[in-house]
Amino acid sequence: LLAGAAPRAGQEQSTSDLDREAVGWGFDPPVMKLAVTMAAPSADDNGSDVGRLLRELKLGHDLHNVSVDFGVLRTLSEVLRAGDWHVTATVVSTRFESTLGSRQSRGLRRPKLIRVEPGDTTGCHCILALDIGTTSVWGQLIHIPKRTVIATASDYNGQISFGEDVITRIVHAERAGGLEELQKAVVRTVNKVVADLLEQTGMDRGCISAVSAAGNTTMTHLLLGLPPRYIRAAPYVLTTSLFPPVKARSLGLDLEDSVSVYAFPAVASYVGGDIVAGVLGAGFYRHKDLTLYMDLGTNGEVVLGGSDWMVSASCSAGPALEGGGVRCGVRASPGAIDAFALDGDTREPRIRTMGEHKPIGICGVGLIEMIAELLGHGILEANGKFDAQRGGARVREGEDGVEYLLVAARDSATGDDIVLTERDIENIVRSKAAMYAGVMTLLDSVSLDIGDIQRIIVAGALGNYLDIEKCKQVGLFPDVPREVFSYIGNGSLLGARLVALSNELLDDAERIAKMITNIELSDHPGFYDNYLSAMFLPHTDMKQFPHVAVKLGRG
Amino acid sequence: LLAGAAPRAGQEQSTSDLDREAVGWGFDPPVMKLAVTMAAPSADDNGSDVGRLLRELKLGHDLHNVSVDFGVLRTLSEVLRAGDWHVTATVVSTRFESTLGSRQSRGLRRPKLIRVEPGDTTGCHCILALDIGTTSVWGQLIHIPKRTVIATASDYNGQISFGEDVITRIVHAERAGGLEELQKAVVRTVNKVVADLLEQTGMDRGCISAVSAAGNTTMTHLLLGLPPRYIRAAPYVLTTSLFPPVKARSLGLDLEDSVSVYAFPAVASYVGGDIVAGVLGAGFYRHKDLTLYMDLGTNGEVVLGGSDWMVSASCSAGPALEGGGVRCGVRASPGAIDAFALDGDTREPRIRTMGEHKPIGICGVGLIEMIAELLGHGILEANGKFDAQRGGARVREGEDGVEYLLVAARDSATGDDIVLTERDIENIVRSKAAMYAGVMTLLDSVSLDIGDIQRIIVAGALGNYLDIEKCKQVGLFPDVPREVFSYIGNGSLLGARLVALSNELLDDAERIAKMITNIELSDHPGFYDNYLSAMFLPHTDMKQFPHVAVKLGRG
Repeated sequence: LLAGAAPRAGQEQSTSDLDREAVGWGFDPPVMKLAVTMAAPSADDNGSDVGRLLRELKLGHDLHNVSVDFGVLRTLSEVLRAGDWHVTATVVSTRFESTLGSRQSRGLRRPKLIRVEPGDTTGCHCILALDIGTTSVWGQLIHIPKRTVIATASDYNGQISFGEDVITRIVHAERAGGLEELQKAVVRTVNKVVADLLEQTGMDRGCISAVSAAGNTTMTHLLLGLPPRYIRAAPYVLTTSLFPPVKARSLGLDLEDSVSVYAFPAVASYVGGDIVAGVLGAGFYRHKDLTLYMDLGTNGEVVLGGSDWMVSASCSAGPALEGGGVRCGVRASPGAIDAFALDGDTREPRIRTMGEHKPIGICGVGLIEMIAELLGHGILEANGKFDAQRGGARVREGEDGVEYLLVAARDSATGDDIVLTERDIENIVRSKAAMYAGVMTLLDSVSLDIGDIQRIIVAGALGNYLDIEKCKQVGLFPDVPREVFSYIGNGSLLGARLVALSNELLDDAERIAKMITNIELSDHPGFYDNYLSAMFLPHTDMKQFPHVAVKLGRG
Repeated sequence: LLAGAAPRAGQEQSTSDLDREAVGWGFDPPVMKLAVTMAAPSADDNGSDVGRLLRELKLGHDLHNVSVDFGVLRTLSEVLRAGDWHVTATVVSTRFESTLGSRQSRGLRRPKLIRVEPGDTTGCHCILALDIGTTSVWGQLIHIPKRTVIATASDYNGQISFGEDVITRIVHAERAGGLEELQKAVVRTVNKVVADLLEQTGMDRGCISAVSAAGNTTMTHLLLGLPPRYIRAAPYVLTTSLFPPVKARSLGLDLEDSVSVYAFPAVASYVGGDIVAGVLGAGFYRHKDLTLYMDLGTNGEVVLGGSDWMVSASCSAGPALEGGGVRCGVRASPGAIDAFALDGDTREPRIRTMGEHKPIGICGVGLIEMIAELLGHGILEANGKFDAQRGGARVREGEDGVEYLLVAARDSATGDDIVLTERDIENIVRSKAAMYAGVMTLLDSVSLDIGDIQRIIVAGALGNYLDIEKCKQVGLFPDVPREVFSYIGNGSLLGARLVALSNELLDDAERIAKMITNIELSDHPGFYDNYLSAMFLPHTDMKQFPHVAVKLGRG
């Protein structure tokens, strides 16, 4: 399983206190467990078993018009008698059940009885929140009565063996049996994550009452077994942007029969439920402030707006910011170089590795730090080329062209030199340029400017460990004051767990998906210019980076 | 498969003209097939495939707020493209979907898209109506656009091998694996009936869009795989009296994935969906006239009332009226003796057999005729004993006691004598006494009298072939004028097929189930007296049978 590095001081996730969040939004969990004591049958009472139970839910719990899942009926008579008429009813009370309807369906919220257990099991009641990432799957158990996260686990998405990126997987899904393979692979991963969560907590599997899942559009399609074929080509058509609840067992998830998977709705082919969940978690859709939401990841999505409107774009940033496509790039894991500085006098590098292990390579955070620092010292130029003179002996000709020697083979855990090549830098510049150009294009599309941005919310596991100043220095983030920025960590997982506590937020998910207008960057006339301008460090137009310019002495 | 005899002249089912019925009730089929031509996707249109389809259903077919079955999504993209954006949508628009809710759910009727096929398949659209009897399963295909029954088929319920009656099957269901065995047995029977219906019509299996099933409470439980255990003992508690729609495939029925089974709601343990369907088909629940509904069958149910109130009772009549538990009793099938008369001069019997075959035994109708005729000629006495003197040589001592020789071995198809024994008569008297006592007890329970009955509706396959005068003569039917009686044949099947055409009637089914008050005869103080009084031919209290009394010379 993935190891997580400690967040930088002051950049801890501001959202770990679910209780506070829940109070803020109103605690009203979509899936409830209710202890019910009902009347035993008698000759005077013409009612059926389920009739008496529903009557008790009405009189004792003010739940009216409850529908009943057929699965409940199969065992109901025995369960009621096994509990001697003291039972626990699991009731889903969510508009998610009517997720595919129009706005009119909002009036149709109708509780549904999905499970009845003997005795009082109200303490055994968790929601599994999932972030189904292209690379990693994260899971958290939310204990509903305690309103708290009781465990977190993650693993690489088993689909990686069929291709690292979304497009490769869509292509694989088009082959005979390919969709089933991919669906099974991610389900295996989720089952492993669940096993880990249960082991951590000692909870019984039966205590998972529902699953809330956020993922990009392709990941959601593949999890649910929907063919993703038409996502990848213009006009980028989704089968559906709203997903009805699906029985977990029917997908192969090792959970109770009664458990359904509630998947976040998608905005468009490349702006999926993960972004909707992130926007939900970030909360800015409820405020007027012009907010920029940046999700740093392989896809690299950005959302701009507030409570009146939102536009989004998918930047196809590529994996470089996560260490992918970089010669000595590694994921954030023990031994990854995640901090870099040059000695003021000797210009010799000082590095830090995660867990203080011997270095195995450079992770995304480390790559940004290196580029920023080398740039600051003039060893790297604005065009992404090394200045051989300033770089000294460490800048040399390597296999892939010019490179900077960071760790010599004798000091590395791999037994090879750890280097940063000009080609690596090119890849990273392409990634950051794509993100930045996405931001600029969104601003252009609504005729606004960087100066109008009032808040920037950075999401993505990477985000928590980034140094804002260094991100500005390389041109990944806009050059605005530090206090404009905040971090929310894994936004997708945050949103997935918040809806477990609040029907209001669950409703908001659909509202957000419908509210966001997606901009296809490749169709937008200004995007390519924005992209080319951002292919420098930090940018060709230094007027956009006034404070960085001063710092780099290019003011 | 069962052979059906021709109904008596003037007693044909008055309900074969579905079109007339449908017009009477308003043609508004709960399951619709709609030809839809939708827009192809374009870059200007941000909508998903399902979004564009739903928009077309709204604009082109005035269907709002349509929910989508998850199964549709799995193939939707390919289906839309295979049909070049001309498709057929199957939409369920029924309150049955919210069958388990309270009255409030009436407002919640919401169409659901359950299937999409390429091209125009609106002509391939049938509902399978089922009557799941303890003994026989009847099926009919209703062609919805043509509003007509296109085929009828039946077979013995495969559960018979586990026991002839409901109680034996409930007991079997309590054994390990017993419920599954019984469920599979009836499903095999239904699958055979479906195969027969398809062969008769040349229809494709995929043209069956939904299943409407009526059966007694135990049969419905067993079909759906619900444990019937608590039905059989006081206080006779049902798991549920309303059944949610269940996917046909999940029950093992060989039908499309999209097909659901809609089972009629039950009133009580021994007054099930078959009676609700019969009351629906008979239509008297809509009229003020005091009506008596008698369903002749193994269980023998009676319903009394009209549009303001209805009471019901299950009479446990036993199988004698269907030829069961009678030495030479047979079901209505070729060679069964179904008519009997005594020559005025010789007192020698004249018989008719079904299909003019050599006689194999006596069916229920024949038994009633024999008893009435022998009674009328004084060969049989009011206490069910033969008058040896009047009977002549045909009345003799047999293996089981005194018997009447009807057909000598040399003339029978079986090579054995066909006889009617005093023990047989005792069984038939018990059956008819149970029915009649049920009627009297229902009348008592509402302080009414035979004279108050304005209509008698006789249901049951047997009914169509019965001679009313003879049924009165043996004391099975009350002694009221002939014009009070009418026949509807298989009421359960009639109701099951009517709801296929009208949402209004579908709603009525639930209303009927909730409206009927069931009387447990065994708990009712007057029942046993009524039963004992009816143990004579026709009755101990001849004041109740004034016209019969005159006829029999006992006036």
